Amino acid sequence: MVEGVHWLPDQDPADVAWKLVASNLSDLAAKTCRPVGLLLSFMLGDDSWNSRFLSGLGEVLAAFDAPLLGGDTVSAASPDAPKVIGLTALGQPQRDPPPSRADAAAGQALWITGQCGAALAGFEALKAGSNDHALTAPYRRPVPRLAEGQALAPVVGAMMDLSDGLLLDARRMADASGTTIAIETRLVPVHPALARRKREAMSWGDDYELLFTLPGGVSCPVTATRIGTVLPRGAHPLLLDGSPPPARQTLGYSHGI
Amino acid sequence: MVEGVHWLPDQDPADVAWKLVASNLSDLAAKTCRPVGLLLSFMLGDDSWNSRFLSGLGEVLAAFDAPLLGGDTVSAASPDAPKVIGLTALGQPQRDPPPSRADAAAGQALWITGQCGAALAGFEALKAGSNDHALTAPYRRPVPRLAEGQALAPVVGAMMDLSDGLLLDARRMADASGTTIAIETRLVPVHPALARRKREAMSWGDDYELLFTLPGGVSCPVTATRIGTVLPRGAHPLLLDGSPPPARQTLGYSHGI
Repeated sequence: MVEGVHWLPDQDPADVAWKLVASNLSDLAAKTCRPVGLLLSFMLGDDSWNSRFLSGLGEVLAAFDAPLLGGDTVSAASPDAPKVIGLTALGQPQRDPPPSRADAAAGQALWITGQCGAALAGFEALKAGSNDHALTAPYRRPVPRLAEGQALAPVVGAMMDLSDGLLLDARRMADASGTTIAIETRLVPVHPALARRKREAMSWGDDYELLFTLPGGVSCPVTATRIGTVLPRGAHPLLLDGSPPPARQTLGYSHGI
Repeated sequence: MVEGVHWLPDQDPADVAWKLVASNLSDLAAKTCRPVGLLLSFMLGDDSWNSRFLSGLGEVLAAFDAPLLGGDTVSAASPDAPKVIGLTALGQPQRDPPPSRADAAAGQALWITGQCGAALAGFEALKAGSNDHALTAPYRRPVPRLAEGQALAPVVGAMMDLSDGLLLDARRMADASGTTIAIETRLVPVHPALARRKREAMSWGDDYELLFTLPGGVSCPVTATRIGTVLPRGAHPLLLDGSPPPARQTLGYSHGI
């Protein structure tokens, strides 16, 4: 994670630590993994920054029972250089091979845990200076769906975590699996603050929910919402209420490539 | 690794890739590991930088038979921000538990592979604009001692790689194991270019040789040089020709902490 790209320069370093770990554990969740351990690559800041970061790190490690196995520390090139902090998370998948985004197949149903837009609502509140911790928490301190990912292991088709926005990630799943994915907007659960900006909520990242498919007839073993269907590959990889999204519209967060 | 800290800003990105991988594999070598795979955290630069980096990455992966398993890419905060590139190397130790720097015991002999100062000689040549690739190679393209590390597994006592300078790393081994380590300067092999600056060569990092101990009576199974002895802990952790190094003298590279 890069200061100014993945977090706001004035954000609490404890929240940066939380998000660094949580976003990595979310990748493990999507692979049905139990966390085994973490390796941290930490760029040293001033004492107060380091201390707040370590405090948040302790909280998130305890919350998700993931031991810090090791890592490395480096100096910054200069005190004002943007910080860059890395993490590698190791996990044990609960099935072999673990599910991938390429495992969607026509006839399966598309599901999502939680709501879209909770992180966007939190981000906007934080930028507006809100002290409403409950509202800003989904952006500052996302909760990886570790239990859900492991519970889905026996039945799930394709699975990925929703880090870059529902529409972009759904299109990636369709492309990887050679299918078309059809989403029904009315079925997509959205955070109440974004009720009138539903399309935007579906195109914003950082929610760290699980997007997955289940074969027909399989009942979902976790709390989640059915939002669409996997179809044989058609002219478009993604259909939204039966039509492809307008080409000019951003589907989600793109990493500068 | 951080631009401006771990590499010169005008250095060939192919050499940066090589050194990033080689320095991590050197840590595996010190644990008697066979490399299993690498995870790269890559900060995107301009096309020519990315392309040269990938070229060097391909070379180093092939040279040491270490597969790239995955990783992540991130954008820089700005085009002129110093680049930061991370790597996690996974390996399989050839003994359980693997040796640590705390495993030195009084009566053991201290050994080192290769020469001290080869990286310093290469660094100085590179800064002076040399085109002598053989002379600059130890700094630009260090070779991790993977075969030696694995061959030492059955017999070695303590082991670590020499990334921060012989004297500093030897003192760390002494401190970790609660011993005193006595080095004889005349026994330490030094790169010919540093023949008259031997003490400096022993205090400069980046050599990525292995520093290890062997129990008395054990013959060394790899090409290496005996440079000292492990003693019961005395008043000083490190003795150089029988005396502690002057307190004002730098023993090696310290990571800003």
